[in-house]
Amino acid sequence: MSKILRVNMNDLSFKWEKVKPEQEQLAGRAFTSTIVSTEVDPTCHPLRERNKFVVSPGLLAGTSAPSSGRLSVGAKSPLTSGIKESNAGGITATKLGRIGVKGIIIEGAPPKGTTDWYIIHVGKDKAEILKKNDYAGIGCYEMIAKAWKDFPSKPGVIGCGVAGQRLMKAAGIFGNNIENNDPGRYAGRGGIGAVLGSKHVVAIISEDTGGAVPTAKDKTLFESGRKALAKALDTQAVTGVLKDPQGKPFGALKNYGTAVLINILNEAGGLPTRAFSAGRFENAAKVSGEAIHELVDKTKAKFGDKAEGKYGHPCHVGCIMACSNAVPYENTGKMHVSPLEYETTWSLGPNLGIDVLQDIAELNRLCNDLGLDTIETGNTLAMLMESGMIKFGDGPAAIAALKEAYNPKSYLGRLVSSGASSAGHVLGVTRIPVVKGQSLPAYDPRPIRGIGVTYATTPMGADHTSGYTIAAEILGIKGKVTDPRELKKADLSRAFQATTAYIDSTGYCLFIAFAVLDIDEGFKGMTDSVDAFLGKKIDVTEYGMKVLKAERDFNKRAGFTERDDRLPEFFRTEKLPPHNVTFDVSDGDIDAVYKGT
Amino acid sequence: MSKILRVNMNDLSFKWEKVKPEQEQLAGRAFTSTIVSTEVDPTCHPLRERNKFVVSPGLLAGTSAPSSGRLSVGAKSPLTSGIKESNAGGITATKLGRIGVKGIIIEGAPPKGTTDWYIIHVGKDKAEILKKNDYAGIGCYEMIAKAWKDFPSKPGVIGCGVAGQRLMKAAGIFGNNIENNDPGRYAGRGGIGAVLGSKHVVAIISEDTGGAVPTAKDKTLFESGRKALAKALDTQAVTGVLKDPQGKPFGALKNYGTAVLINILNEAGGLPTRAFSAGRFENAAKVSGEAIHELVDKTKAKFGDKAEGKYGHPCHVGCIMACSNAVPYENTGKMHVSPLEYETTWSLGPNLGIDVLQDIAELNRLCNDLGLDTIETGNTLAMLMESGMIKFGDGPAAIAALKEAYNPKSYLGRLVSSGASSAGHVLGVTRIPVVKGQSLPAYDPRPIRGIGVTYATTPMGADHTSGYTIAAEILGIKGKVTDPRELKKADLSRAFQATTAYIDSTGYCLFIAFAVLDIDEGFKGMTDSVDAFLGKKIDVTEYGMKVLKAERDFNKRAGFTERDDRLPEFFRTEKLPPHNVTFDVSDGDIDAVYKGT
Repeated sequence: MSKILRVNMNDLSFKWEKVKPEQEQLAGRAFTSTIVSTEVDPTCHPLRERNKFVVSPGLLAGTSAPSSGRLSVGAKSPLTSGIKESNAGGITATKLGRIGVKGIIIEGAPPKGTTDWYIIHVGKDKAEILKKNDYAGIGCYEMIAKAWKDFPSKPGVIGCGVAGQRLMKAAGIFGNNIENNDPGRYAGRGGIGAVLGSKHVVAIISEDTGGAVPTAKDKTLFESGRKALAKALDTQAVTGVLKDPQGKPFGALKNYGTAVLINILNEAGGLPTRAFSAGRFENAAKVSGEAIHELVDKTKAKFGDKAEGKYGHPCHVGCIMACSNAVPYENTGKMHVSPLEYETTWSLGPNLGIDVLQDIAELNRLCNDLGLDTIETGNTLAMLMESGMIKFGDGPAAIAALKEAYNPKSYLGRLVSSGASSAGHVLGVTRIPVVKGQSLPAYDPRPIRGIGVTYATTPMGADHTSGYTIAAEILGIKGKVTDPRELKKADLSRAFQATTAYIDSTGYCLFIAFAVLDIDEGFKGMTDSVDAFLGKKIDVTEYGMKVLKAERDFNKRAGFTERDDRLPEFFRTEKLPPHNVTFDVSDGDIDAVYKGT
Repeated sequence: MSKILRVNMNDLSFKWEKVKPEQEQLAGRAFTSTIVSTEVDPTCHPLRERNKFVVSPGLLAGTSAPSSGRLSVGAKSPLTSGIKESNAGGITATKLGRIGVKGIIIEGAPPKGTTDWYIIHVGKDKAEILKKNDYAGIGCYEMIAKAWKDFPSKPGVIGCGVAGQRLMKAAGIFGNNIENNDPGRYAGRGGIGAVLGSKHVVAIISEDTGGAVPTAKDKTLFESGRKALAKALDTQAVTGVLKDPQGKPFGALKNYGTAVLINILNEAGGLPTRAFSAGRFENAAKVSGEAIHELVDKTKAKFGDKAEGKYGHPCHVGCIMACSNAVPYENTGKMHVSPLEYETTWSLGPNLGIDVLQDIAELNRLCNDLGLDTIETGNTLAMLMESGMIKFGDGPAAIAALKEAYNPKSYLGRLVSSGASSAGHVLGVTRIPVVKGQSLPAYDPRPIRGIGVTYATTPMGADHTSGYTIAAEILGIKGKVTDPRELKKADLSRAFQATTAYIDSTGYCLFIAFAVLDIDEGFKGMTDSVDAFLGKKIDVTEYGMKVLKAERDFNKRAGFTERDDRLPEFFRTEKLPPHNVTFDVSDGDIDAVYKGT
């Protein structure tokens, strides 16, 4: 029933392919990584015709399973030169799931010198490649509005902004938000937006008219599974809708979004501050999830129905965790940006010494409009500050620098769009926080060593989502770890990486991990729903390790060695206040993650 | 008698060390590469305290052997992340040779945030580290003039300009010219100037007062050897002082300098034009060695004694090939830049589509003043043109872009100083002509495949001097190769690489290769002089391979694999006019260079 769309940008042709038996269990990350590792030459230039751009909704996308609307995109990364999968919420996965599209593979590229730009429009049993030059060279907000005007069914829209069109290595893939058609859902990492740009494709537009909810092979088990998972999600402290004794609902994500982590990491001394030079930011509270919550409440009180701020906002139909938010302008209550996530708040806030929430929201909005990954861009701006070109804490200067990225003739504009590694090298910075060329996220690996092992060893380059040991090290999911140094970091990281590779393939949001790790029935609900859908028992670790092995194998063939599984030198030589610790996991312990696997 | 100066910039201390028995045969490249490979952790950050900067005059430096005044500098390269040796002529090697300094090793770095800058002053049995903040932040012409004012003995001066001081990856090490104290002698490649800058050392000043000409162990053999070599050099067509039937002297290098190659490579269709998009430049003749010769003659005729242009200019006492020149301003006859070499003429000329000799000379002067490698900088400017930021052929725009490098707050200035790889990535270029991060020199590897194998496999990153197969492929030294495709490229490249590693250690200029390959007595003269000096028979290939193995081993430990021994993709996919060929040496043939060695 489901099928694969293969697009050839050399001659603007496409064909539908049947799903092969060995592809039936593959979806999301398992699909994109398998296609990339089997079809793409690991030695190819990532931004030329031999790379491929692959899209795949998670296995359960479009079903009634809770929070199962993640979409994966994959390619050889121009940022890391290794394999890349990045995923996001939004509405496209659901649309593709409902019209039976397991994946879209875009290969080739128009001849050199092409000035035309294209969209790929896909619907139930149909596809077309349309020339749309007016979609290129403009902001993503404007582009996405054009798409909904041209296609009134309110389709899923994913694409690359001017950053990707100009082959900038911090370019991500945006997706539209559920309600307000903002380009706020980002599969941001790895510069994968530039791969789509190199194909001269600005957007992929998915309509589900005529589609249907996919059905599980074992409907009864699927129902019981999804309900068990939903119950776990609703009752766990991070993901749930608990009520306090006064009946007032609380729950970390619903109230404070992912930015609830700002205060938590700051307390732990692991919130990277001013380009990873400290682990605690003196004004963290001003930019915390709690501060966003207060801002929303304040503008609601002040502007009433006109206030557009929100918390507890879902990113796709069927998300019951609803960690998203909409951050309003303080002075009008109108929408400024949606969502403002923990990683973004950090990368564009404490990481730059910026403590003004409105400045952070504006930087985020600019990234969304330009088509830039916020983690990579925040770290890039940090390199400008580290080199003394602009001052730490100067929000207006950071905003002005980022706005340069609209101008294709601006050298600064190119620099802020090119990622921390390139920018840091150009600026003579010797403290560049990257692994495999990709910027570190919002957890300093010196006090939180397990996440450092994940950064070092994941095939993706520095990435927290690949093996989120924070759940154990900081949040105490499945039992708080009191002294992180006692953990076997390799085992911890490997277990998280394998489980993550599985979850990233199911369409489930990684945030279900809080509930499935904490509540055994939740875990069973997750696996039951997947097994029931496929009509086959899947071993979580085995499935995940298979994906990881394909990814690692690609990287090995691309020339990666154990030397690429390392953190930058300064994490080992510079002590991080306030705990004054260095990253002291041995190389042997790092290499143990994949040794013998 | 000879000894090693070890400087510790952590605490500004130094000590003299005896030469160990196993170091006695080591000098020049063999010395720097052995020290780097045994003392530097290959995984260290190249611009932080764990890297070391090593200087060593060639074995015969300071002796009466002809053209034996080369100086090697070595370190882990910030451009390639591998081992680096770069060498140049000039007067420092002779000075160090005469005061018995086999090497200078600079380790450590002043504490972070240091704003002070230092020079290292070395003389007969003495050394000192002096704070000289007025040497920093200024052009190299001004810096070098200060040095000769502060040290009236007219010492050897090598150092890094503002590019190196700002840790820019295209920064080279300048050395002064024999007569006019210009910073024209560049050990340019690999960003090694930034390593010296990271130590906060701006210059190393060598005085030979009280020194003496080093003596050979076997004086008789040394005399006969050096004379045989000198005779070969004087009689070979490339290096000699032949006379035509009218008694007028001719000889390629003496009359036309190394830029004699412009017309030759252009004829061969291997002169990379406009960022390696063609192999022939329509206006090559305007910027050829012949054109430089004519300009010198013209200004001599016009300005008489006031004319400062020269050809047949030696770079150090005892150089009898005298390939250097001094290019005058056309309108005044005054010195513009010295020397203007083939590689520079190409990188800043045809490579950019620039056909105005005065513009090329000005770009060269700016590089010399800023402390930038001309090959790397020319390729970087080519990336600006390839990306459309400035136009091919626009000399004034290129000059304006390069001048930005004086301003530490200019983003463009940083970009043009950072090397082609970084700049190309920032600008979204997918045709970046680098191997191991270092820019290709002036021979397109598509029609001239052997040099392509050298680019790919030398531990140095793309580098013609590491294994100059052009001698066989284009110049017909030791018998012209009529169809380069018939050559076994691996054998050819390996033989040149090993011999080069030997020559780079002796202090002899690589250009003696023309004579020693063509004239058997010349070869024997070379080996006799070296053997006589050491009092020990040295096998050229064995000695060279030992150096290469140490270098390759360093790179392997740094994480390099066969994947790093590859040319960029576009050399295999884009045909080069006028011969319309791609680089078609197989990966297996490339890997054969070092397989089993």
